[in-house]
Amino acid sequence: ELAELTAEQFQHGALAGKRVFITAGPTREPLDPVRYISNHSSGKMGYALAEAAIDAGASVKLISGPVTLAPPARAECVQVETAEQMLAASMDGIDSCDLFIAAAAVADYRPVAIAEHKIKKGSEEIMELRLVKNPDIVATVAGLATSRPFTVGFAAETRDVIGYARSKLARKQLDLIVANDVSNPEIGFNSDDNAVTLVSAQEEINLAQASKRQLARQLIEQIALYISRNDSSTT
Amino acid sequence: ELAELTAEQFQHGALAGKRVFITAGPTREPLDPVRYISNHSSGKMGYALAEAAIDAGASVKLISGPVTLAPPARAECVQVETAEQMLAASMDGIDSCDLFIAAAAVADYRPVAIAEHKIKKGSEEIMELRLVKNPDIVATVAGLATSRPFTVGFAAETRDVIGYARSKLARKQLDLIVANDVSNPEIGFNSDDNAVTLVSAQEEINLAQASKRQLARQLIEQIALYISRNDSSTT
Repeated sequence: ELAELTAEQFQHGALAGKRVFITAGPTREPLDPVRYISNHSSGKMGYALAEAAIDAGASVKLISGPVTLAPPARAECVQVETAEQMLAASMDGIDSCDLFIAAAAVADYRPVAIAEHKIKKGSEEIMELRLVKNPDIVATVAGLATSRPFTVGFAAETRDVIGYARSKLARKQLDLIVANDVSNPEIGFNSDDNAVTLVSAQEEINLAQASKRQLARQLIEQIALYISRNDSSTT
Repeated sequence: ELAELTAEQFQHGALAGKRVFITAGPTREPLDPVRYISNHSSGKMGYALAEAAIDAGASVKLISGPVTLAPPARAECVQVETAEQMLAASMDGIDSCDLFIAAAAVADYRPVAIAEHKIKKGSEEIMELRLVKNPDIVATVAGLATSRPFTVGFAAETRDVIGYARSKLARKQLDLIVANDVSNPEIGFNSDDNAVTLVSAQEEINLAQASKRQLARQLIEQIALYISRNDSSTT
């Protein structure tokens, strides 16, 4: 009965009628047909946010790098590999997007050139790999001149977590940033738990360690609150 | 009844009483606490070989990089991340090893230095990454002066597959090499199927496209045949 009550609450939920794009997981940047650079993102936080947003009444497009999670049944899912593919999928239909949550751990750099064939190990003890900066997806979305969605970023850091998050918030013109200490293995990339701080220009909201599922619901509630304040201040 | 018959055959199987080490999956070489270089190996071939070797009566140690497969129940499993860890796990107890099968896709190179903290994206458009050659695990084992096991390597190639495999066989002093064309997506790293050529100094045996499980059984049979010829020629 509690479950039904909750479901009903969410039908008239905090994000009812909103179009939400969520990026999740890592990206993979190929060096050649077999090798790549990636990171330890499991996608759990992004997938949990997609579920929570759907439960809150949103229509969700989940743009996901390679992960081993089953896609949420009620979300539109777009599978991508590279940062460039993730950017293209994010910009596709961005005009209709009300809320953009960038939970993916996008590779900052990719190899300059992708070898067509597998690179043969030579006799060289040392190899130099040239990397070029990837497009900054969340900054691209947050910097849109027209029909810019409410934009939420993530900052996965190993030190000075709030400091780095706050400077990223300002530099990328985000509305909110979710700061995440990934140096703690209990709440890291592959963990089921997380503990985060939701940072806005004015305040910080600490969300204590909980399952990523529970945290995702709290985050969606808080984000929806900010959006409703935004909507009422602009109308 | 057929299954029982097969199980009984394998109790007095082709590798009865043999100690077998099998490496499987990719390795991950960290750049910093969150980023790494890896490759598309799924571990399916190595895990299937472990199953087939157990069914053939062997006592198996499976040394596996990060994969999403469940470890075979009857194998001793050692989980590793990096090439250096895989080498250490391979050398541990190598004196008692009769057959070493290197099915892992070991990263050839690793970053020279691992950053203690997450590398911050700078303003640089281009980043140079210095990589150093990893230890060559299968060549180390095959080059052992005393109690060297029968050593089988893999060659995952995208062109001139047999040519590269044959030169690798000679250069690394392997007994056999399994040549694998990974440019064909039907039989590639993440596929359930494979098609390989078993290459020795004298001959080539083509094993047609089949499930990795079926191919693993054929490979184990062929490898056991070579070992028994070896044993009888040296006694």
